Amino acid sequence: SEGLETPTRYLAALEAVQLELEAVEEEAARAFRRLRARFCLRRRPHLQRRNRLIQHIPGFWVTAFLNHPQLSAMISDRDEDALSYMTSLQVEEFGQSRPGCRIRFFFSVNPYFQNDVVAKEFVRGPSGHLVSHSTPIRWWQGQDPRSRPHKGPPAPRSFFAWFGDHSFPAGDRVAEIIKEELWPNPLQFYLLGEGAEGPPDR
Amino acid sequence: SEGLETPTRYLAALEAVQLELEAVEEEAARAFRRLRARFCLRRRPHLQRRNRLIQHIPGFWVTAFLNHPQLSAMISDRDEDALSYMTSLQVEEFGQSRPGCRIRFFFSVNPYFQNDVVAKEFVRGPSGHLVSHSTPIRWWQGQDPRSRPHKGPPAPRSFFAWFGDHSFPAGDRVAEIIKEELWPNPLQFYLLGEGAEGPPDR
Repeated sequence: SEGLETPTRYLAALEAVQLELEAVEEEAARAFRRLRARFCLRRRPHLQRRNRLIQHIPGFWVTAFLNHPQLSAMISDRDEDALSYMTSLQVEEFGQSRPGCRIRFFFSVNPYFQNDVVAKEFVRGPSGHLVSHSTPIRWWQGQDPRSRPHKGPPAPRSFFAWFGDHSFPAGDRVAEIIKEELWPNPLQFYLLGEGAEGPPDR
Repeated sequence: SEGLETPTRYLAALEAVQLELEAVEEEAARAFRRLRARFCLRRRPHLQRRNRLIQHIPGFWVTAFLNHPQLSAMISDRDEDALSYMTSLQVEEFGQSRPGCRIRFFFSVNPYFQNDVVAKEFVRGPSGHLVSHSTPIRWWQGQDPRSRPHKGPPAPRSFFAWFGDHSFPAGDRVAEIIKEELWPNPLQFYLLGEGAEGPPDR
């Protein structure tokens, strides 16, 4: 019976190891949560100041979007005008307990839609897949691009089509660019188009 | 000229804020790197002990794979036999400076291929996209499934087809399952099939 008991002994030892690992993981999760919270607080006053400064620069966000080599490809002429009313961007990462992020776009009163803020949000669904949601856009009468008669060649890719597209969140390259490139340093993209004028005074 | 200078002043202030944010991000990156290294060290002895224990349980990994509801769907009968020679799994996350991970599968001498370890690796390519690579499998003569005559209905999904598939790394659900579910607690999947026998002695 020694031979029969041995695998059970190994399994019991393995279970003990898993419990030890679990304790380490819980401690790690707490430590990372604390560190994230600490740096979230550290960033906040700078981000608030950045947000206030940007509001003084008309067309900052639409310019930064248009100057990004990949984002510009999905901004139609109509998008460009709608995005010229964008006043603020906010990217918020959720904690480790709920991985995901929310991208919020703030707008001033504009002739396209009624929302003053729209959000696209990415979270893990119950199956473990990344899923996305977005605020329904309340277009003004006749402004919904899907209901407008369309002439000429097929419509180019559009910012608002991306915004409402939830077909493949894990491969949402636009969200990734906004989160990883534009949000950390929007100024560099804003300035890209200003080459001829040189960098701002220091 | 006050009106002309104002945007430049805001841009200069914005640049100063970006530099401050950059300093915070560098400090954050250092702090997270330190914390990751600390917990990597904390986990190591437990993972080494787990690895040694698992080697004493024949067929541990193939059983854990087969008992995972989603992984089992991509294990053909031939895969099952090949995976019965798998002795060890290793999942290694790269640092933040080089996001990605490497999954290594260790095998004992077997009639299918010559490698004793094969790895599938995920890294960010220069364009920012996730790309994957894997070790070329040195099949023994006549064992490469791609060169074997195939009878009957289309081949089911296969572990080795997944291993060599680099068409869409960002959506590699199998890698995600191995990394996020199997690796943290393989024992729970190993035991799933043992329901009738009850949990191991404690």
